[in-house]
Amino acid sequence: MPARNEPEEVSRLARAIGSGDRTVLSRAITLIESKRADHRRTAAALTQALLPATGKAVRVGITGAPGVGKSTTIDALGSMLTGQGHKVAVLAVDPSSRRTGGSILADKTRMAHLANDANAFIRPSPASGTLGGVAAKTRETMLLCEAAGHDVVLVETVGVGQSEIAVADMTDFFLLLMLPGAGDELQGLKKGVVELADMIAVNKADGDNIGRAKAAAAEYRAALHILAPRSPNWSPPVVTYSALTGVGIAELWAHILDHRKKLEASGELGARRGEQRVRWMWTMLEERLFAPLRSDRTLKAALPRLEAEVAAGRLAPAAAVQEIADMLGR
Amino acid sequence: MPARNEPEEVSRLARAIGSGDRTVLSRAITLIESKRADHRRTAAALTQALLPATGKAVRVGITGAPGVGKSTTIDALGSMLTGQGHKVAVLAVDPSSRRTGGSILADKTRMAHLANDANAFIRPSPASGTLGGVAAKTRETMLLCEAAGHDVVLVETVGVGQSEIAVADMTDFFLLLMLPGAGDELQGLKKGVVELADMIAVNKADGDNIGRAKAAAAEYRAALHILAPRSPNWSPPVVTYSALTGVGIAELWAHILDHRKKLEASGELGARRGEQRVRWMWTMLEERLFAPLRSDRTLKAALPRLEAEVAAGRLAPAAAVQEIADMLGR
Repeated sequence: MPARNEPEEVSRLARAIGSGDRTVLSRAITLIESKRADHRRTAAALTQALLPATGKAVRVGITGAPGVGKSTTIDALGSMLTGQGHKVAVLAVDPSSRRTGGSILADKTRMAHLANDANAFIRPSPASGTLGGVAAKTRETMLLCEAAGHDVVLVETVGVGQSEIAVADMTDFFLLLMLPGAGDELQGLKKGVVELADMIAVNKADGDNIGRAKAAAAEYRAALHILAPRSPNWSPPVVTYSALTGVGIAELWAHILDHRKKLEASGELGARRGEQRVRWMWTMLEERLFAPLRSDRTLKAALPRLEAEVAAGRLAPAAAVQEIADMLGR
Repeated sequence: MPARNEPEEVSRLARAIGSGDRTVLSRAITLIESKRADHRRTAAALTQALLPATGKAVRVGITGAPGVGKSTTIDALGSMLTGQGHKVAVLAVDPSSRRTGGSILADKTRMAHLANDANAFIRPSPASGTLGGVAAKTRETMLLCEAAGHDVVLVETVGVGQSEIAVADMTDFFLLLMLPGAGDELQGLKKGVVELADMIAVNKADGDNIGRAKAAAAEYRAALHILAPRSPNWSPPVVTYSALTGVGIAELWAHILDHRKKLEASGELGARRGEQRVRWMWTMLEERLFAPLRSDRTLKAALPRLEAEVAAGRLAPAAAVQEIADMLGR
């Protein structure tokens, strides 16, 4: 979408998105996901133009090991919400995502109800070389979705690298889904994920598993007690539910709203979002400053060798940095 | 120290440091801490020249809340080690450090024995604007100290920002010192510090406090059990000791050596150091790429305003980044 007169183009896009035009929303998201500098500039201007219309959604990050039932949970929760009159956007951060498919996050084929729901908008993870790049695009996409009228945004991720931290840093509430295993499942988790959680929800509390699910919940509760809560106004609850039967889904949302109410009352939600915005700025800036390393052909060729030499202890890190800086001309 | 013929200058410095010349070591560290580009280049070349002489030390990071007795502990431990024939370097990472004093870390006045010990080298934290900058200089300083013959390096930090993570990422063993309070002291700790620890040592296990210290140790042990250990080859022990009486100090070192033996045998130590070196490279590169933001006068003036506008929700992060990139000409 070449922008011959950018301010006009941006106004046009902003108006269409604000009126809920889903086609334009999708095109604008493609702008965000583009690598072209002119697209990037238009996307930034568009976000700025739509800024007053953003921020009103409940933003929930959802993570859990493969097989825990994230898609089924999002489908059940999302459908309950659209049934209540909400407009739900489902996004994803998956750094392993590739252009030609491969990411199973925010996958319509795994969310049978939402995929056919006019009040749900599902967008798979952007493909990108870095987590920082993927997260940045997802955040901008979230803002556009909010401006388009979505008042609930669910951002799905899976435990790859630092993706949970990135998703927790763009949402108001971070939900960790667990299977009804024993306490050692918690130990198997990546460091830091448990402490990010505003709630732990044990899925598959149905049929013969109900007892195991409740026992697991009790163990997770004990573990959470040891770790300091992130806010003085919120103690992360541990609950059980079943995405299959729907039991407990409404309670999940009730907890999310309770959290929101408490954090809005204390001013913490606003403060947290402000801090998130500033971190977004610095992260995007870092991506921008590092871009030449990924696009410059000489550097791209040299970097793996330099990294290997440093890893092997043959090249001092400081000396490697000097070489790279010289190649960059800085 | 202008380097008219840099390779000669570097060789001269390298030889002097390798022979244990403490005066030259101090001057070289000043090079490392300098902001000048020529000094930085010389420092990088010096580190490269000395690289084969580095890496042989036991590197221990030490943290704990103010008042826990870090200085007394380092003094007691360091003195025991020099008494055994070791050469001990004491460094510090304190991002709040200023040129005209102010940091109480690696402070000779608080380490009465080591300050007068010919086999101990104490260097306070470099002063710097950023944690990344301070950590980078401390790491390079550590390498020079190792090349100068120090076979034990203790890096002290206090819980400011991400400094513990930085210190854990430059050492082989991360020691967390605690007071003999109850389990809720652990909860009061910053997220992530507990999981970084390779050992928790409860100080002030002397006189009437012995019982409390042991009770606290038991609670910390229970907490550690919930959190997954960082290595399959090491379960972080929780011990009590007294920096005042010296009881338990020898055991601290025995645990550190035990850890080293196990991780060397499994190859984990070498792998960990290789990964650390690569992260050092990227962190230093990031510092380098961000430097124009800190030195360019227009940008330095604009950044606080941009950050405030983003925090307040009036300026979209993407738009702020576009402005900064335009100012940088990138």
